[in-house]
Amino acid sequence: MPSLSFRANSLQESAIRKLDQYQFARPEIRFYRLNIGQPDIQTPLPLLDAISSFQPKVIAYGPSDGLPGLRTAAAKYHSRWCPTLTAENVSVTVGGSEALLFAFTAICDPGDEILAPEPYYTNYNGFATVAGIKIKPLSTHLKNKFSLPNNQTLDSLVTPKTKAIVFSNPANPTGKIYQRAELERLTRWAQKHDLFIIADEVYRRIWFDKPPTSMLEIEQAKTRLIVVDSMSKTYSACGLRLGFFISRNPFLMEKIARLGQARLGAQPLAQHVAMAALKLPEEYYETIRKTYKTRTNILFNALSKIKGVSTHKPEGAFYLMTKLPVKDTEHFAHFLASSFQHKNETIMVAPGSGFYADPTRGRDEIRLAAVMEKEKIEHAIELLSIALQKYNSKYA
Amino acid sequence: MPSLSFRANSLQESAIRKLDQYQFARPEIRFYRLNIGQPDIQTPLPLLDAISSFQPKVIAYGPSDGLPGLRTAAAKYHSRWCPTLTAENVSVTVGGSEALLFAFTAICDPGDEILAPEPYYTNYNGFATVAGIKIKPLSTHLKNKFSLPNNQTLDSLVTPKTKAIVFSNPANPTGKIYQRAELERLTRWAQKHDLFIIADEVYRRIWFDKPPTSMLEIEQAKTRLIVVDSMSKTYSACGLRLGFFISRNPFLMEKIARLGQARLGAQPLAQHVAMAALKLPEEYYETIRKTYKTRTNILFNALSKIKGVSTHKPEGAFYLMTKLPVKDTEHFAHFLASSFQHKNETIMVAPGSGFYADPTRGRDEIRLAAVMEKEKIEHAIELLSIALQKYNSKYA
Repeated sequence: MPSLSFRANSLQESAIRKLDQYQFARPEIRFYRLNIGQPDIQTPLPLLDAISSFQPKVIAYGPSDGLPGLRTAAAKYHSRWCPTLTAENVSVTVGGSEALLFAFTAICDPGDEILAPEPYYTNYNGFATVAGIKIKPLSTHLKNKFSLPNNQTLDSLVTPKTKAIVFSNPANPTGKIYQRAELERLTRWAQKHDLFIIADEVYRRIWFDKPPTSMLEIEQAKTRLIVVDSMSKTYSACGLRLGFFISRNPFLMEKIARLGQARLGAQPLAQHVAMAALKLPEEYYETIRKTYKTRTNILFNALSKIKGVSTHKPEGAFYLMTKLPVKDTEHFAHFLASSFQHKNETIMVAPGSGFYADPTRGRDEIRLAAVMEKEKIEHAIELLSIALQKYNSKYA
Repeated sequence: MPSLSFRANSLQESAIRKLDQYQFARPEIRFYRLNIGQPDIQTPLPLLDAISSFQPKVIAYGPSDGLPGLRTAAAKYHSRWCPTLTAENVSVTVGGSEALLFAFTAICDPGDEILAPEPYYTNYNGFATVAGIKIKPLSTHLKNKFSLPNNQTLDSLVTPKTKAIVFSNPANPTGKIYQRAELERLTRWAQKHDLFIIADEVYRRIWFDKPPTSMLEIEQAKTRLIVVDSMSKTYSACGLRLGFFISRNPFLMEKIARLGQARLGAQPLAQHVAMAALKLPEEYYETIRKTYKTRTNILFNALSKIKGVSTHKPEGAFYLMTKLPVKDTEHFAHFLASSFQHKNETIMVAPGSGFYADPTRGRDEIRLAAVMEKEKIEHAIELLSIALQKYNSKYA
């Protein structure tokens, strides 16, 4: 049998997805899935209406870089952060995922490096492996509120192979929000080293006290900036698989168009749905912000009551990176998914180590997503508390 | 401004897609788009019904490797060629495109090579560039009915970097069908060199006199075989962006699952539509075969009447690779798209060179797709004939 590629053999299982198999294997158990950022908020009705009204004669290809109407609508939507944005600055992608893969591929050749504040969205590792590149972590810590390191530390990590920095804002998994002064410092630093800045802003509309600054507002970053956006979290439409690659660098956009041609195009149906989403009134965003603020508070309060657990209030997004009184959360997460149950219920959590490049970090952490009604969150954390006792009496 | 990657700079514009811009720039002109494999046959109603009946509360992620119901249905559908196929042998992808990119990525590291009978589907080049690998052509020729070279020639192209052979059957762009004896020879040859076989069978249901043998029928190929299938052409659903990666190699499927996790999953809505498609009766496939047989005949006959044009009758799929009496079909195709018109109409064609790795080949060829009603095909070829006269009087 022929051998597989080195990169295929080095692909890790997704920290978020790898426990899914147990849910199929235990149909009698009710799983509270706090492992995955899958909101349970109803998808707004205009999006569902756009699906049922899509009745073409032929389900045909669209243009490779997206329907002109959607590119224009997305430019207009993002113009609140960057007034000069036009349709030419937007390419429509298969989720934020494809936008990230396109960014890594267009900027890096195999062997190149991209810096990322750690802990970071675990799937950056997968895109990096596919693109044949390396994510190099910038360590951030709960005790410093996950702030970025100083310039000296940032400088020390740059090598001739470094091509970009990627970060999410608000951040997955920490809930950290970077504000203007920090983004301006980062831009000056990126200018000094001539790096691209990849701003993953898929949680931009989910903040609790103070909105994040969008990198689109930092005019000096203009041609070195790539912004990734997505329908998934903002519109409870993860399964739509639609996102945006945004850049005001015409040379880059020309290459992104060619990457787009190679895979023909994003689905026109999903693009019609996205056009409906971008017409939603401002009140919609107010509502989801309030909902996630309440839920993350509930999750924080519930976790705070468990002895030995420490966590932090997120400033945005809907995740809590949480320290548990266990040595190996990978093992604990498997225990929860594969054997624990209390009255035929269990909870699914994402082991922390998947969010770190450094294998010594995150071993006692999990990521929890506040993506359920508050009663369910409280109940799920009760299950977590019971499971911790059971687990530690068995394994500690 | 930071520099882009070498691979981004070496991405070519799609031979099929690059002329699209002219259609937007010339709204007063009617374009007969024979450049792209976009059927105009009505998408079957059960597929459209599946769209309008998809009304979940939340448009949620599905499993990374596809909905279990669709994986089972796809295994059952393909079991007519391979009775032992199971759901575990099928992963659902974003079009045949993603299945090809997954195959290239899982088998090859950057710098590796994949052989392909030339002319080949132009987008193999794009996937190869993204994966950082090289397509190495096996030349085939109209005068030999595009037959594969003998074993000695095949052997001579294998290097330590060669990991696989990829081919489409029926073939895009030649319409060639490979039959059992040829596929068995190819399998023995692949065994000798320990290579993977990537069989792109997205046109499998479109044949005119004798059905192609599916590589799934060649039992000896079992663990070295990857089959790519797609909803696009068979069901007039190119815009659905749904395909399948099929393999009975469990080690490979494990890595494909991880590649799938990194991009979260294919769209559940499109998967519901695919389930409806796989339930269509056998008569449906009969009908489309007859339609494309008529259309390719019409296209062949119309082309045969033009002086200096030579082409061939395809055995399957719906393309005719056609030699024109011009020196540079790239220039001619731009002429057609950007300036030619006859009574406010023109035709779009795909320049032949994009279907070759060897830059000296295909310069006097175009690919035409028989994807319209027969009257339109005849009319489009009249336009081609007028355009050839005009072009040659101007440039020859």
